[in-house]
Amino acid sequence: MSEPPEDWWPEVRPDAARRLMAAAVESFASRGYHATTTRDIATAAGMSPAALYVHFPAKSAVLFAISRSGHERTLQMVRTTMAEHDDPVDAMRVLVERFVAWHAKRHMIARVVQHELDALTPEDHQVVLELRRATENLVRDLVTSGVDAGVFTVPDVRIAARAILSLGIDVARWYSPTSKPAPEVLGKQYAELVLSMLGHGVRRREPH
Amino acid sequence: MSEPPEDWWPEVRPDAARRLMAAAVESFASRGYHATTTRDIATAAGMSPAALYVHFPAKSAVLFAISRSGHERTLQMVRTTMAEHDDPVDAMRVLVERFVAWHAKRHMIARVVQHELDALTPEDHQVVLELRRATENLVRDLVTSGVDAGVFTVPDVRIAARAILSLGIDVARWYSPTSKPAPEVLGKQYAELVLSMLGHGVRRREPH
Repeated sequence: MSEPPEDWWPEVRPDAARRLMAAAVESFASRGYHATTTRDIATAAGMSPAALYVHFPAKSAVLFAISRSGHERTLQMVRTTMAEHDDPVDAMRVLVERFVAWHAKRHMIARVVQHELDALTPEDHQVVLELRRATENLVRDLVTSGVDAGVFTVPDVRIAARAILSLGIDVARWYSPTSKPAPEVLGKQYAELVLSMLGHGVRRREPH
Repeated sequence: MSEPPEDWWPEVRPDAARRLMAAAVESFASRGYHATTTRDIATAAGMSPAALYVHFPAKSAVLFAISRSGHERTLQMVRTTMAEHDDPVDAMRVLVERFVAWHAKRHMIARVVQHELDALTPEDHQVVLELRRATENLVRDLVTSGVDAGVFTVPDVRIAARAILSLGIDVARWYSPTSKPAPEVLGKQYAELVLSMLGHGVRRREPH
């Protein structure tokens, strides 16, 4: 179910930078950020330590590139989904499907990004926190628009938005390449649970 | 909102062992398990490295003691809650309130336990996985009993149980001593969201 590492960052150029980021994810995941050296990353990517410095000034810059890319793509996905769907129920369903499938497929990256937030420099951390806030605000707006339209009922919009994101993010903690169901199926099941959580009455029952 | 470390493991004796566990949580949380030495832990607890070995044979034994205690107490809480409440709705409400408040209050321990699962020895890891499975099975049984009683409607009992636990566990990821609302209030709000997620129609609205 996992994608090959070279597909993780289609936007990153050149290939060498992408290969270093993939090698870093695997090293950070297996031995932790602090115990990983730039030499470990370079070696895992089949390069010399000097070659790493051509692309990244420091180990934390590799971590930041991984973290920023993940958060930017999530924000972009949420924006795109909301632009594609006027109906809050449709938008929420598709958003959760995509968000959950994303975290299931890229569970290794997401885990590294979560665990090592504190290892970012304060400036880099700030960038990531702002991307998170932007994503959370959009989800909150979507819950609010559903409440305003009378299709969602929640005790607290802020807590509901937090819970929706939480459900998706936590998938990365427990999902593994042998987990069932497949990321897209899990996404559909979670979307149904979330709509129900938001007090949306219509419950679809589809075979899966 | 956080409890003082000495209250984290009321069942652990002697005090020195409890102090070492608290020092280990803070060290693992701040610099990661791999970068922490037994000397760091002993020093943080105001002891000599030799004194640590009186209580724990190795660094991983401290981690295991922390992890086992957390998982045992969670399992015990779920068991107690289910024994106290015959009604599946009441049992689920109280279970989520307690589970969420627990993860909010002890977010630092819960984070260490989650992040460093892979650092346990295979035997210790197995013990923890079995405690988790036992907890998850109880939650699944509770969802099933609600479905059988006609008060819950879910597309998939296993996925619903996973989502309930996931929501609670992920609280430890984002909760901090400055977070709002207070752990118990968050627990009540999440309980309401979970009952709704489980298709339970009655929605209580209480001022908070």
